[in-house]
Parts: sequence; structure tokens; C-alpha cells
Amino acid sequence: MANQGGLEGIAVADITTSFVDGSVGELIYSGYKIEDLAENATFEEALFLLFHSRLPNRQEYEELRATIAANAAIDEAVIRMLQSLPKATPGMAALRTAVSMLSAFDPDAENLLDKEVAARKALCLTGQIMTICAAWMRIIRGLEPISPRGDLGVAQNFLYMKSGEEPSATASAALDSYLVLLAEHGMNASTFAARVVTATGSDMHSAIVAGIGALKGPAHGGANSAAMNMFLEIGEVDNVLPWFEANIKSGKRRIMGIGHRVYKAPDPRAAILKRQAEALADSSGNRKWFDIAAKLADAARADDYFIQRKLFPNVDYYSAIALYTLDLDVDMFTPLFALARIAGWSAHVIAQMGGRLIRPKANYVGPRGLTWLPMDER
Amino acid sequence: MANQGGLEGIAVADITTSFVDGSVGELIYSGYKIEDLAENATFEEALFLLFHSRLPNRQEYEELRATIAANAAIDEAVIRMLQSLPKATPGMAALRTAVSMLSAFDPDAENLLDKEVAARKALCLTGQIMTICAAWMRIIRGLEPISPRGDLGVAQNFLYMKSGEEPSATASAALDSYLVLLAEHGMNASTFAARVVTATGSDMHSAIVAGIGALKGPAHGGANSAAMNMFLEIGEVDNVLPWFEANIKSGKRRIMGIGHRVYKAPDPRAAILKRQAEALADSSGNRKWFDIAAKLADAARADDYFIQRKLFPNVDYYSAIALYTLDLDVDMFTPLFALARIAGWSAHVIAQMGGRLIRPKANYVGPRGLTWLPMDER
Repeated sequence: MANQGGLEGIAVADITTSFVDGSVGELIYSGYKIEDLAENATFEEALFLLFHSRLPNRQEYEELRATIAANAAIDEAVIRMLQSLPKATPGMAALRTAVSMLSAFDPDAENLLDKEVAARKALCLTGQIMTICAAWMRIIRGLEPISPRGDLGVAQNFLYMKSGEEPSATASAALDSYLVLLAEHGMNASTFAARVVTATGSDMHSAIVAGIGALKGPAHGGANSAAMNMFLEIGEVDNVLPWFEANIKSGKRRIMGIGHRVYKAPDPRAAILKRQAEALADSSGNRKWFDIAAKLADAARADDYFIQRKLFPNVDYYSAIALYTLDLDVDMFTPLFALARIAGWSAHVIAQMGGRLIRPKANYVGPRGLTWLPMDER
Repeated sequence: MANQGGLEGIAVADITTSFVDGSVGELIYSGYKIEDLAENATFEEALFLLFHSRLPNRQEYEELRATIAANAAIDEAVIRMLQSLPKATPGMAALRTAVSMLSAFDPDAENLLDKEVAARKALCLTGQIMTICAAWMRIIRGLEPISPRGDLGVAQNFLYMKSGEEPSATASAALDSYLVLLAEHGMNASTFAARVVTATGSDMHSAIVAGIGALKGPAHGGANSAAMNMFLEIGEVDNVLPWFEANIKSGKRRIMGIGHRVYKAPDPRAAILKRQAEALADSSGNRKWFDIAAKLADAARADDYFIQRKLFPNVDYYSAIALYTLDLDVDMFTPLFALARIAGWSAHVIAQMGGRLIRPKANYVGPRGLTWLPMDER
């Protein structure tokens, strides 16, 4: 029997977190349209929604925010480890290592069965990933990391720790909305990796570390950095069409951030991010990168190859512009994606706990019936 | 449609590394019976076989051994990170973090496409995992880690670094055989996790780190430590039958290391490991733990519950006795399993490189059509 290597169309779980209808470009989190959430919800509200299948009241919301902020500090040994890494280390490798190391400082790390404890660990990791991202950005710039504040939400706190200054309301709102949009997306590859790990009975940190490793790939979360590097390579709006001819029409390369395994209609997140990226670009006084991205997307939209294959900008395409305008290093785009997706990963991990071992099979196509020969007779 | 959560019977790849026929208890690596390999092959020969689908000649074998040994040292920063962890940190968490951190010191870490480079990285990781395991055992005992020797094979080198003394031929041969037996096993959960990560285009270290996280689970590699803890709890041969009555017949607990997703006949690795464990126990002058394990397995074999469900000792059951007799800490059993399985993981990772994104789907069963409400109206 032919193998089903991509597992397309094979359902591996019943979930309540999100529903994706790629044929019409619909995404909901636990009943709410992504457009409503991007407009109205903070990241913490979205996180509560994904965990509890309902929106929090004010008390629940404040408790969640306070729990994340109060547990966001990372052990000094983890800071020293980050400082010992070569500065060229990819942000995702630094994040993966720091999250793995943090398990050693969590007294509940080896509690493998209690879902309430797991939810608490997930909130700690949310704050800690926020802190690691900001600390790593400062370390590679030769600066001392700044400790998290107890009174700020995730988006604000991250921007504060990155620069040492309270961020503008525009910047905080844009990052918050980005985090909401990327918090969860069905059975994507990193979420599935986290579930495969959890299904062996392993711990929360092991699962999240696997998710980070999967998200790092250029066919998954790594696409946002790759898209920005492509825009930087194009460099000027006037270069878009010649670049498209030379690299895309020629078949030499693909456009990073266009096309998606599930969406065969426009990705609803991309439409929201496009508007946000444009507003951020306008408020920063520099539209160049947005204009390059928009013109390249237009070129693709008018091209038969993209039309026939139903390839549209995905969530990574315009988020690259938004994050760049927020003055984030290109290498930090994917760690910021991880900061958003910890919400979805951990909701899936908790749902998977106690579930069945995920163990597919393989078709053996190698040799059979060989007889051992001593080494000097080979 | 009902979800296929465990992915039982769904083939996700064509492979040449190993064939498992669980219905008759057959295991081959690239054409050779596991019984022949356990009897004749070193771990390095098995590794070459899994990578190349043939056995090495003497020159190839010596080159492989030399490459592993020459790249087995780990950066001083990684040693310092291990020394900064609380001594109660599980060996698997220490190993997962150290392997993740090592990517920062590998100049080829971000080469994501070249399979020859990937094979070289896999050999480095084999030696480095060996070194991490030995270093961690010394660190938790308050000793300084010892550097690897260039002239020793993996089994010998590990035992040398653990104690500072050249190991006996019996101990080296027993560990070598253990490493051969556990080197590869079809599409098991940790191998699958490594493939899911690789299929996003991510790097070798991310994939191996995911494999380590999955192997850590008690329903996978964590079972060997759990089995030994059970034997230690039983404590005396005379306690086996009362313990079986009180814990197993009563339905309160399961026997760790008995039963397997794939094998519905005796696991061929368990039969070999049982003989080796007995020989090691005899040579050590202490048969107690072997006798406890054997008596408990006999009790299970005579019990209807186990007979009807075709539950037999798996690879973890007697390997616990073998590793304990080699004076390894119980917590280090699963890291030693990882040292063996890096062979299979990396062969699968290299085969998966450039392959299709592994992205199943989920059935959404949550709410739909909800309308956003401001927080103070909830």
C-alpha cells in the first residue's frame, strides 16, 4: 500500500480550539471568528478562550495576566547559558535550548498526569518565552537583559523588556493582535509534533521544545523570516517586477510566505495582517517594505501559476512586514511566532495528555534474508 | 469521521532501515536478523548498516569509528550548562538541553538540505550524546567529566568516561550489544516525532531533540527506568507473587516493560536481552534483580489477562536489569536508550529530508457562531 507520508486528510484528534475551513478561508477559535478576535481580544483573552472554550470574565482575565507576568522571570543559570552561546546562534535554537533548560527549574516539570498543573506550567512558559525572546534580542546586541514587569500584558511586557522603555499604544496593540492571530491553527505540524511527544506520556517542556523545533522549519514558522529576507533582497519597489521575472517566472525559486497546505482561498489572517502592516508602515513614516510586499503579492495574484494552484499570501507574508516595522530582528520573527503559538501548543498538549500513543507504521522496502559475513570477507 | 488518534496501521514512509513483524516477533535491520546482529555486530557496524543498507568493510568501519570518536568532545559551555542544573534534573532533560545547545557550536547546524552534511552531523551527535551521558553521570556524583578517547568505540568510550577506567571486555560487549538491539525500530513514536520536525525543513538538532523528548515518555523509552524502579520496589524474589497479587491482579497497576504496540508475539530483543542480563548477573555475583524480573515475567506469562492480550516482556524489561548490572543510575537508562536510538533517528531524518510536510487534520467539535461580548458583559 502506498504510504500516506503527508497524512493529508487524516484526522488525528477531536479538538475544540480552532476550526479551519481552507476552502473558503475561514478560521475560528472556539466559536469566535478570527476577525472578531483580532479586532477585540488581547492575547491573554485568546489564550483563556483556547484553554476553556469560553471568554474570561474580568476577574479570570486579571488572574491569568497576573499569573503569566508573575512567573515570567527566568533563572539566572538560563541567562548565563544564553550569554554563553555564539551571537550568530539562530533565535529559535536559543529559544529551544532555553525552554528545554527551564524544565530543570520547574518543580512540577515531572508531573506528567495532572492537567491543572500542566495548565499552570503552560502559563509559566508563556511568560518565560516572552522573557527569553526579549533577553536574547538584548544579548545579541551586547546589552544586559531586563526583568519582566508584573503589571504588563505579554505584548507590552515583551516590547518593554526589548527596549527598556514603555512601548507606544500602537506598537503594543499591533503586537497583541499579531499574537492573537498566530495563537492557534488546528493540527499544524508543530502542534502535531508536540502531541506526538505528549502521547508517549512525556512532559510539557519536551512537547513545547518539539513544537519549537518543528516551527523553526522554513516550510512552517521559519517562512516569516524567509519572506522578510526576500523583501530585503528585492530592496526597492522598482525591483519587484524584474525580480519576479528572474526568480519566480523562471521557476528558479518560490515566493516565501505564499501558499499554504490548508488554505486554497485567501488566508483570513493575511488580510488582517496586511491592513495592520500598512497602518504600522504609515505610522512609522516608511512604507517601502509594505509596498514591496504588496506589489509582489499583486504580481503573484495576476500570474497563472499562482491562480491555478490557488496560492495566496499566508500568515507569514505580511506578518514579516509588521514585525520588521516593530523593529524586531528578522531572526526573531519565528521566536515571536512561537510566543504566540505556545497558546495553541499547550492547549493541544493538555487535551492530548492521557491519550493514545501516536505510532504509525512504515512500509519496509529494504533487503531481506541477508546472511552475516565477517568484516574481512566483505 | 472518527479520528485515527493512534495512527495504527497507517504507513507514513517507505523505509530501508528495519522491518518489524510483530505478529511473529521478527525484527531485521536492512536485511539482517536482529539475532545475528546482536551476536556479531558492534554498534558502529549497525549504524553503518542503517545508513547505507549494507555492512561496512574494514576501512569504512575504522573511518566511522574514528569520525565518531574524533567529534565526541562537547564544548566547555555545554559542560558548564550541565553543571549549572540542579542535580535532581532527569537525565533525559539534561540530555535534551545539551543536544539542543550543541547546535550553536556546529558550523553546519543550519545546513538544512545536504544529506552528506546531515550524516556527518549525525555521527558527531552520536559521539556527543555518548559524552553527555557519561559527563552527566559524573556531574550528579560530584565528579569532573572526563574527555572522550580517540581510540575507543562508543560502548567502551562511554564506560571509560563514566568511571575513568578501561571497562572489562564483558561489560563493553554487553553494552555494545544493548546499543545494537535498541538502535532502530521502524516508525516508533520518537522516530516519528523526529520525522515530523524534519518535514518542516528544520534542522538535525531540532529533530533529535524532539526524538529525545518523545523517548522520555513512560509509554516509550521511559519504560526501562520505570521497570527497574518496579523491580527495586519489589525488592526480594519472595515478594514477587504477593506484589503481583496486590498490584496487578487487583487491576491497580500495570507491569512496566510488558506489552508493546506492535509485538503480539515475544519481542525478539527481549529474548536476547534476557540471556545477556542473566549472564551479566551471574558474572557480577548478584542474580537477585534478574531473578525478580524473571519470576514476575513468569507470573504474567501464566496469567489469563496477559495471555488473552498477548502481552510479553518488551525491550525495556530485561534491558533494565542489564543496565543496572552495568552500574548505571536508573535515571540514565533512558539516555542510554537515546544513545542507541540516535542511529535510527538520524537515518530516518536523513531519509525524510526534502520530503513532504507531515500535517494531518483534526475534527473540530467545539462551539460555532459565537458573538463577541465586551469583558464586563460576560
